Amino acid sequence: MPHSPVPSPELPLAHLRIADPFWQRYQRLVQEVVLPYQWDALNDKVADAEPSHAIENFRIAAGRSDGAFYGMVFQDSDVAKWLEAVAYLLAQHPDPALERDADATIELIGAAQQADGYLNTYFTVKAPQERWSNLAECHELYCAGHMIEAGVAYFQATGKRALLDIVCRLADHIDAVFGPGPTQLHGYPGHPEIELALMRLYEATGEARYLALARYFVEQRGTTPHYYDEEYARRGHSFFWGGHGPAWMIQDKAYSQAHLPVALQDTAVGHAVRFVYLYAGVAHLARHSGDATLRAACVRLWDNATQRQMYLTGAIGAQSYGEAFSVDYDLPNDTAYNESCASIGLMMFANRMLQLAPDGRYADVMERALYNTVLGGMALDGRHFFYVNPLEVHPPTVHGNHTFDHVKPVRQRWFGCACCPPNIARVLTSLGHYIYTRRDDALYVNLYVGSDARFEVGAQTLTLRQRGEYPWQDTIAFDVECSAPVDAAVALRLPDWCQAPQLRLNGEPVAIEAHHQHGYCVLRRRWQSGDTVQLRLPMPPMRVSGHPRVRHLAGKVAVQRGPLVYCLEQADNGADLHQLRLPASATLQAVPGSGALDGQVLLQATGERLHGDADAAAAPLYRYDAPPPARQPQTLTFVPYFAWANRGEGEMRVWVDASDG
Amino acid sequence: MPHSPVPSPELPLAHLRIADPFWQRYQRLVQEVVLPYQWDALNDKVADAEPSHAIENFRIAAGRSDGAFYGMVFQDSDVAKWLEAVAYLLAQHPDPALERDADATIELIGAAQQADGYLNTYFTVKAPQERWSNLAECHELYCAGHMIEAGVAYFQATGKRALLDIVCRLADHIDAVFGPGPTQLHGYPGHPEIELALMRLYEATGEARYLALARYFVEQRGTTPHYYDEEYARRGHSFFWGGHGPAWMIQDKAYSQAHLPVALQDTAVGHAVRFVYLYAGVAHLARHSGDATLRAACVRLWDNATQRQMYLTGAIGAQSYGEAFSVDYDLPNDTAYNESCASIGLMMFANRMLQLAPDGRYADVMERALYNTVLGGMALDGRHFFYVNPLEVHPPTVHGNHTFDHVKPVRQRWFGCACCPPNIARVLTSLGHYIYTRRDDALYVNLYVGSDARFEVGAQTLTLRQRGEYPWQDTIAFDVECSAPVDAAVALRLPDWCQAPQLRLNGEPVAIEAHHQHGYCVLRRRWQSGDTVQLRLPMPPMRVSGHPRVRHLAGKVAVQRGPLVYCLEQADNGADLHQLRLPASATLQAVPGSGALDGQVLLQATGERLHGDADAAAAPLYRYDAPPPARQPQTLTFVPYFAWANRGEGEMRVWVDASDG
Repeated sequence: MPHSPVPSPELPLAHLRIADPFWQRYQRLVQEVVLPYQWDALNDKVADAEPSHAIENFRIAAGRSDGAFYGMVFQDSDVAKWLEAVAYLLAQHPDPALERDADATIELIGAAQQADGYLNTYFTVKAPQERWSNLAECHELYCAGHMIEAGVAYFQATGKRALLDIVCRLADHIDAVFGPGPTQLHGYPGHPEIELALMRLYEATGEARYLALARYFVEQRGTTPHYYDEEYARRGHSFFWGGHGPAWMIQDKAYSQAHLPVALQDTAVGHAVRFVYLYAGVAHLARHSGDATLRAACVRLWDNATQRQMYLTGAIGAQSYGEAFSVDYDLPNDTAYNESCASIGLMMFANRMLQLAPDGRYADVMERALYNTVLGGMALDGRHFFYVNPLEVHPPTVHGNHTFDHVKPVRQRWFGCACCPPNIARVLTSLGHYIYTRRDDALYVNLYVGSDARFEVGAQTLTLRQRGEYPWQDTIAFDVECSAPVDAAVALRLPDWCQAPQLRLNGEPVAIEAHHQHGYCVLRRRWQSGDTVQLRLPMPPMRVSGHPRVRHLAGKVAVQRGPLVYCLEQADNGADLHQLRLPASATLQAVPGSGALDGQVLLQATGERLHGDADAAAAPLYRYDAPPPARQPQTLTFVPYFAWANRGEGEMRVWVDASDG
Repeated sequence: MPHSPVPSPELPLAHLRIADPFWQRYQRLVQEVVLPYQWDALNDKVADAEPSHAIENFRIAAGRSDGAFYGMVFQDSDVAKWLEAVAYLLAQHPDPALERDADATIELIGAAQQADGYLNTYFTVKAPQERWSNLAECHELYCAGHMIEAGVAYFQATGKRALLDIVCRLADHIDAVFGPGPTQLHGYPGHPEIELALMRLYEATGEARYLALARYFVEQRGTTPHYYDEEYARRGHSFFWGGHGPAWMIQDKAYSQAHLPVALQDTAVGHAVRFVYLYAGVAHLARHSGDATLRAACVRLWDNATQRQMYLTGAIGAQSYGEAFSVDYDLPNDTAYNESCASIGLMMFANRMLQLAPDGRYADVMERALYNTVLGGMALDGRHFFYVNPLEVHPPTVHGNHTFDHVKPVRQRWFGCACCPPNIARVLTSLGHYIYTRRDDALYVNLYVGSDARFEVGAQTLTLRQRGEYPWQDTIAFDVECSAPVDAAVALRLPDWCQAPQLRLNGEPVAIEAHHQHGYCVLRRRWQSGDTVQLRLPMPPMRVSGHPRVRHLAGKVAVQRGPLVYCLEQADNGADLHQLRLPASATLQAVPGSGALDGQVLLQATGERLHGDADAAAAPLYRYDAPPPARQPQTLTFVPYFAWANRGEGEMRVWVDASDG
């Protein structure tokens, strides 16, 4: 008996259309450049990039090509993420060529699926006897999760069931293999992802077994005797990844957040992407299961990750070793790892937390991650990507000191481990999932992205038309359209960065405080066609200071305007950015960008440069009781962090030395 | 025909006796604690330390014990360094028990030597067929060098030839194996050391072949086709060290300063210990060979290493990857490697440069390295050692962030790779080599270490008695004793840190400027018994500032008094040292230390703590347009850097935030 979809707090793809000058540029870029480019990359047609082989792996698995598997053990997921991004794009813009490539790929995937539902080209081609024998290291469930997400998205975007059917067979196979039964495996993934994917599949299909399987994976995690040890012993202590020492992924269980049961964890540890994917799934599960313990764990870990271990840019993962969290308040600017995918996962975690209970602080972080690290992960040309996103880059040091081997001073074309580019593409095309949250008769506006949203309340429909020039301009206008009056609430997020938001309803000022609930201004009324709301979020340039425990931020200041964090670049300010100081008294002025930064708002202030005229090369390395260094006034130009490194290689820093003057 | 020793600018061991309250304590510690402890360690009798197995390896090689080689490929060198330290100690203080152990060890070493003169327990026991097949990675010539140094020292200290004969046979064997002949190997060591050892052996024996062999090794280095590649191909591309990638030591030729011929190098690169050992040998060679090109290379590389890549503490090797130099002006305080052995090698390089041409700047660095990093490498108890010497340590981060895996917040008992502890012991017992430099009829006083020095000028002898309380007190007294007047110069170093030195000769003030030559005050006269010289080196506490290009030092200040660099420790100042600021106007006062720091001079100033009363845990991670943080006055207590981490685990930092107030 077919089940019905479970109501979701996300607007159906068909009910949302982006209409926003800032984001339409990105969506066009994704459609015209990123996805075709990535398609070429997946098919090894990009001359100066590392080969992907991802499509070819499926061909080999389907028996349509000879040859050996090539790539990472999780290479399949690049195809899945590309398909998911294509799905969201097709929901916005018909693109027959893309859809044809996607359909052909789905057909190929179906051919690569095994008779029992199993689907993974690495194991099918290279190690068919080793299926499900190394969950700790080998990403089978992770790849399955991404394929499930793609199947759900492609179905929801196009109505086509082919990939949904494939991933249902895959999920059914996994459900048969894993579980508490005596003949089943009692394991769970090394890299979480399938948990949130199964929750999406549950919502799309209404099949309760998928929810139960997600719950099984979450509740098994970190229990003892430890599954990673058991399977390690079962396969004769063989391991897949070297590098940090033999079997380190198995031994360092915190790396995969498997050191403790989920409900007992209280600090964000280990691989940052694993962490956010896991807790996005846990939050999603908690919403449906009502498990208060899991929910409390989500809140606790959210708070630790975002209040003690998050960079100003919404980046997480301070250490390169293990692409991992460090410890509370350890936020080095230059050695940071800060993977683009981790900030994407943080948006996913935030979105699930919003769906659990609307609270603006989750959306604040979601916005911070999106407008800074996620956007910054892609060049303005759509063809180059950052995997690692530090807040300070000094190219001569990056080139000469191996501590910075993970840092690239300019974005790269593609990566051997290519998780980030397709992940950025899918988040840019799926913004609709993040802008709004439905909750009963309330529509929460989390992000100020121009869009038309169709919101169904009971049998009635309210269409909210959001328009603005965010993040550059401070005014967002909403028009309401409905065939009959609708009793509903529209809740507008009041960003944490905005000191004095202003609101007008049909031209009349609204006292925001009277409607303030958990970071939103909740306007509950009988809406009529023609109602207008105008939200003004004044965005003067602001100075940001860091927590007293963060030793890397002592005596430093950052600059933010609206949701955008700014940075100094060598292109505008010369080299030796550490010699620049921003006095407390200096006024920051908005100025228009030009050239590569045309259309952007830059910020300028009169700062000072220390040692302006010193012949630095001839100066001694150390001086005793030297007079204070000379200070020369210099105009400091700040550019949005997301737009850095689009003008060649040079120094960059977000946190600038402050001075009292 | 036996040769005669070549005159050396070093005073013979028998002509020098340390008589210094500061250093006698260390020499006693070396005699009573360090060397016996290290003897136990070499014999695997220290319960809670990593096993050494070094003596047992010699027993096995000598056929007196069964079993397998254990330890690093350069484990033999620990025994050699211990013997060298013992030799210097015996030259100062008879110690029959130590001498008996040393003699027995030498007998054992002789038994382990092969009939052809070869001596290396790793290859003898474990891989006899692979002798001399992997110079790039396997440290055979390095171990030989240390054994040669020990042989020379033990002969000079005790007159016993047994070890000298052993190492002459070893050197003769090496001379037969290596050289330009068609049947010889055209190689040179991966880890330099033998060059300087052969120069010492040449001076001790007068055997010119040893000088020629040192020159061969130096001149072959970095030539093409590259020897490391040739031997790598010859042995079928096998390699010894993994870790940073296959055969990385062979491929990364700059790691061993073998990327270019020595004479063409102009930047200090690669493994810092290799660098200083190599250039100590090159400088030693250049003095005897008169090669102006090699000499110029030494000056050039000295300047780069010490004027662009040296920490204030005389430490070198800014990056942990490869224990290596980084790039000019990259001197991170917390991630620094700064191996103790590298600073010891820097002293050796400095000493050879002084012997090439007296110039106080070499002695300034020698003193800086000795009183800060080298001394700091050993705990005040003589039982614990640092391998790595950063200028800032934050224990919670060190424990939680793998970027700091090389850093230990407290000194360790022994190391699996135990190069540093015996190296510190031998430098502490061989101070006599560094204090004075003879040059014709001039005696240069490089270090202010209380001592009696017998200086022979032609047929005459001048005994200089140096007394003082350095580094704590500013006055050093010299008394001259001679049976007849001696025409000679006594040259007193004028330290770079001293702004206004004062000098009295027989009670009369001397205008120092009139006698100033290259950082020394050269007193040339007819010396008579009873002549006295009093040097006063006023040592007010000073602030140090860093070069404008060093971004880690911008806005920061360090404190130094005399040769001692100071630091803040948590034990005196509380945690969160980054919240402390030293205002420009604050006066630094000398105060006596107590407890573990009894007898030391500490420094105090009224500084300020930012965020004094903030409830840090509850504060948000980022704040907008926050008022400047509250400042609370706090007494800042600075302790000598060498004495840090003797009172348990806690934060430390040398460079403190300055403030304009």
